[in-house]
Amino acid sequence: MRISLQREAGTERLPVYRQIAEQIRSEIEAERLAAGERLPTIRDLARSLRVHRDTVALAYEELASAGVVESTVGRGTFVRANGKTNGATPHEFHPELSPIAEKLLDLERSRPRFGSAGEAVPMHSLVPAPSLYPADAFRRVLNRVLTEGGAPLFQYGGTQGHPRMLEVMAAHLRKAGIEIGADGIILCHGASQGISLALRLFAASGDVIAAEEPTYQNVLSAAAGLGLRTAPIPMREDGLDLAVLERTLARPEVKALYTLPTFHNPIGTTSSLEHRRALLAIAARCGKPVIEDGYEADLRFAGKPVPALAALDRSGLVIHLSSFSKSLFPGVRIGAIAARGRAVDALLALKAASDLSDAMPLQAALAEFLAAGEYDRHLARLRRVLLERRDAVLAALAEHLPAGARWTTPEGGYQIWVELPEGIDTRDLLADAVGAGVLFAPGSQFNHDGRASRCLRLSFAMADAALLRRGVAALGRVLEARLGAAARPAAVHI
Amino acid sequence: MRISLQREAGTERLPVYRQIAEQIRSEIEAERLAAGERLPTIRDLARSLRVHRDTVALAYEELASAGVVESTVGRGTFVRANGKTNGATPHEFHPELSPIAEKLLDLERSRPRFGSAGEAVPMHSLVPAPSLYPADAFRRVLNRVLTEGGAPLFQYGGTQGHPRMLEVMAAHLRKAGIEIGADGIILCHGASQGISLALRLFAASGDVIAAEEPTYQNVLSAAAGLGLRTAPIPMREDGLDLAVLERTLARPEVKALYTLPTFHNPIGTTSSLEHRRALLAIAARCGKPVIEDGYEADLRFAGKPVPALAALDRSGLVIHLSSFSKSLFPGVRIGAIAARGRAVDALLALKAASDLSDAMPLQAALAEFLAAGEYDRHLARLRRVLLERRDAVLAALAEHLPAGARWTTPEGGYQIWVELPEGIDTRDLLADAVGAGVLFAPGSQFNHDGRASRCLRLSFAMADAALLRRGVAALGRVLEARLGAAARPAAVHI
Repeated sequence: MRISLQREAGTERLPVYRQIAEQIRSEIEAERLAAGERLPTIRDLARSLRVHRDTVALAYEELASAGVVESTVGRGTFVRANGKTNGATPHEFHPELSPIAEKLLDLERSRPRFGSAGEAVPMHSLVPAPSLYPADAFRRVLNRVLTEGGAPLFQYGGTQGHPRMLEVMAAHLRKAGIEIGADGIILCHGASQGISLALRLFAASGDVIAAEEPTYQNVLSAAAGLGLRTAPIPMREDGLDLAVLERTLARPEVKALYTLPTFHNPIGTTSSLEHRRALLAIAARCGKPVIEDGYEADLRFAGKPVPALAALDRSGLVIHLSSFSKSLFPGVRIGAIAARGRAVDALLALKAASDLSDAMPLQAALAEFLAAGEYDRHLARLRRVLLERRDAVLAALAEHLPAGARWTTPEGGYQIWVELPEGIDTRDLLADAVGAGVLFAPGSQFNHDGRASRCLRLSFAMADAALLRRGVAALGRVLEARLGAAARPAAVHI
Repeated sequence: MRISLQREAGTERLPVYRQIAEQIRSEIEAERLAAGERLPTIRDLARSLRVHRDTVALAYEELASAGVVESTVGRGTFVRANGKTNGATPHEFHPELSPIAEKLLDLERSRPRFGSAGEAVPMHSLVPAPSLYPADAFRRVLNRVLTEGGAPLFQYGGTQGHPRMLEVMAAHLRKAGIEIGADGIILCHGASQGISLALRLFAASGDVIAAEEPTYQNVLSAAAGLGLRTAPIPMREDGLDLAVLERTLARPEVKALYTLPTFHNPIGTTSSLEHRRALLAIAARCGKPVIEDGYEADLRFAGKPVPALAALDRSGLVIHLSSFSKSLFPGVRIGAIAARGRAVDALLALKAASDLSDAMPLQAALAEFLAAGEYDRHLARLRRVLLERRDAVLAALAEHLPAGARWTTPEGGYQIWVELPEGIDTRDLLADAVGAGVLFAPGSQFNHDGRASRCLRLSFAMADAALLRRGVAALGRVLEARLGAAARPAAVHI
């Protein structure tokens, strides 16, 4: 079998693993490799081609999924009997995908897989459990709105969003101290679309966005999906590192800061008023805009509110993102961007170029749901539940986690950040944890480069207090087994 | 100065610092506090209101950044001379926008503005009129689905889409001859999002997408919004120019073809089976994928169906886009992408990076709407209406348009393309047409470079037959006035 690789960079060449797969495929089609014949081992082929073994493994995987070869553990990889590419499967055209699509596929492969975790307590995800949703109340409002609004609600609704929801959203933000009118709001398809739009507003392929590390993992994939790079700003006790921020924003290729000052994801903490003022002063000095993600802003259940960055800014420095995915339910797919000046027009143009407009029936219903006070009533209930859950998790952590573990005490939102002793890679704990009965989010997925982390994020979005206690106890057992130490912690809070 | 604070918790009240700021602002606006007057010191006001000094400081800061007061270190805080809140503009920060955002703003500015066209017959837009929507039937299905499905329907629904809608969509496409299973479908937020995702699948910033000229104007802005360039393939009597296509796809920087073979937008015609086979052969020879936009595929009201490109392709060369925006209503915001092989995974990764997932309630309802036969019943009614309208427009064109005008005879969809004698720029007719009582889409907006065109697109999506006749008559008057000739046309059809 002869394989020759084009290795020099260039947009025209196929990825190396695809080159290998394509050439093996040709050998089979030309019947130079017969059905039943064994391919070289991954190790041998990697050595002879001077490529990494993962590259060969990927090539074999692609051939296997196309039905051209099959692998048997311990025996090797064999050409299939009907191993013609147009035999088993008719999909012989493999278009070259954009580098961004390839990058996203790589990212996707590196995400933790929870599989069917069965009975394990779900503490890995920030998606609130359906039992918390006011689904029936919302359904009734939606049905009423559609009965009254009729067919025109099924029109395109204008790129900015449903007029009444724009008004209601602006009033909602003003109550939180963000001075904005309906003309400064762009409704969007979840805060996740808001993130994509805000990134594209300031940055184009090759540019850099500053963001905390750790940070919301989907911001990293959103940036990758736009061909952007990210610059990590380390998190400190009180918010991101301001000195690193100033150095980073001063770089011309860095176009904006993405930040989660309130109920930070994954850390759970909220930066102080003083820190926020300093952050805004730095951004203003560097002339760089700030994208503030207020995705859990409505979920404060303890402590005193700290004004949003957007509430402290009158200059148009801050783009503020809101979401109802965490505070109501994700399925309504409504988020909002609050902006000023030309940014509003540009965001509308970007939104129009992305998907024209959103679904008006859901926006119209959400507007009524808020205006009728249903949302506030729901929030009041939800906050009580969350406070109880947080306290259950904190108590269980103090009881079950070994010495040397530390964790945060959030005043809102769903997530607690746990730091374990040096030397642990929390990815390595995941399989044991699933076995012991708990799921968590390993810290590595929140690092810009995906490197190992001794931290993990626990969420109380999905399970109730009793289950959460059981989950933390399971985590404690896994850690004790791993650390070989049953010492109780000194409950040092970060 | 009298300030009264609401202190009890409650979602309705403003934060205390905002209450203070708002009341001082009112005092100034009512001129009970005059320009130059000094406000109490922070310490004094905090003591008298029994709030923390930070709270008062925050209120003063807010007033200062709104330009209402100014502080001088060591002297105090004073009402500004022009201290009306609408006096000084507080939005002094103008962030640098990305080149793509600037480009989209330019495109936006060049779009025709129809303003409040009053009584003019709307023949400019392909958006069907709400009177055609089966809104009530859909509302009932939606309400039932939500009653039965309950809270879980308000979860994230998975990036691919609602499982039942995936099945129903695949079955719908198979009926049209496109051999695909539910695992080859990605539901998306209107076909417009499908276009964005498909473009990003194959092309990155700086790459080129081939597309017909004229073409759907939003594809041009979607491409611009992604930093892509487009290469025009001229339209001929039977589909796009195949020779130009082959030369264009052979260029390495051209990554894919976007095409509208059925009920072309804006031209309205459908390419022949022979043309489709030739197009696919060229794409295969050049190794370049094809993005087929089947946005009006369900709207055939005359003639014999021609198989979609995706129905003629078994190799994975074609990505097929579907939409319910034209055939049902746009407000449901549901489109679908049909793809094969790795493209499916990559599209899912792109969709996840864009906005995670769509609104499940609407997808679940649409699935039932299709499964119950409601969609087919609606289509049968809609096709009858469209055929009647098309014939009304064709007859009116023959009656009212001057010699030298030619037009197409679509067998489905909403649009007719009218070619006027040399020397006319249809943009120049628009103002007169609005005055005469008709709106149309000037041909220039469908050209890749926006250059002048002697063509225009007439739509019968929004107005009924009687209004359409009146609209075409108005167009005829405008043209006669412009051309100074009242000769009747020889009704040469393109």
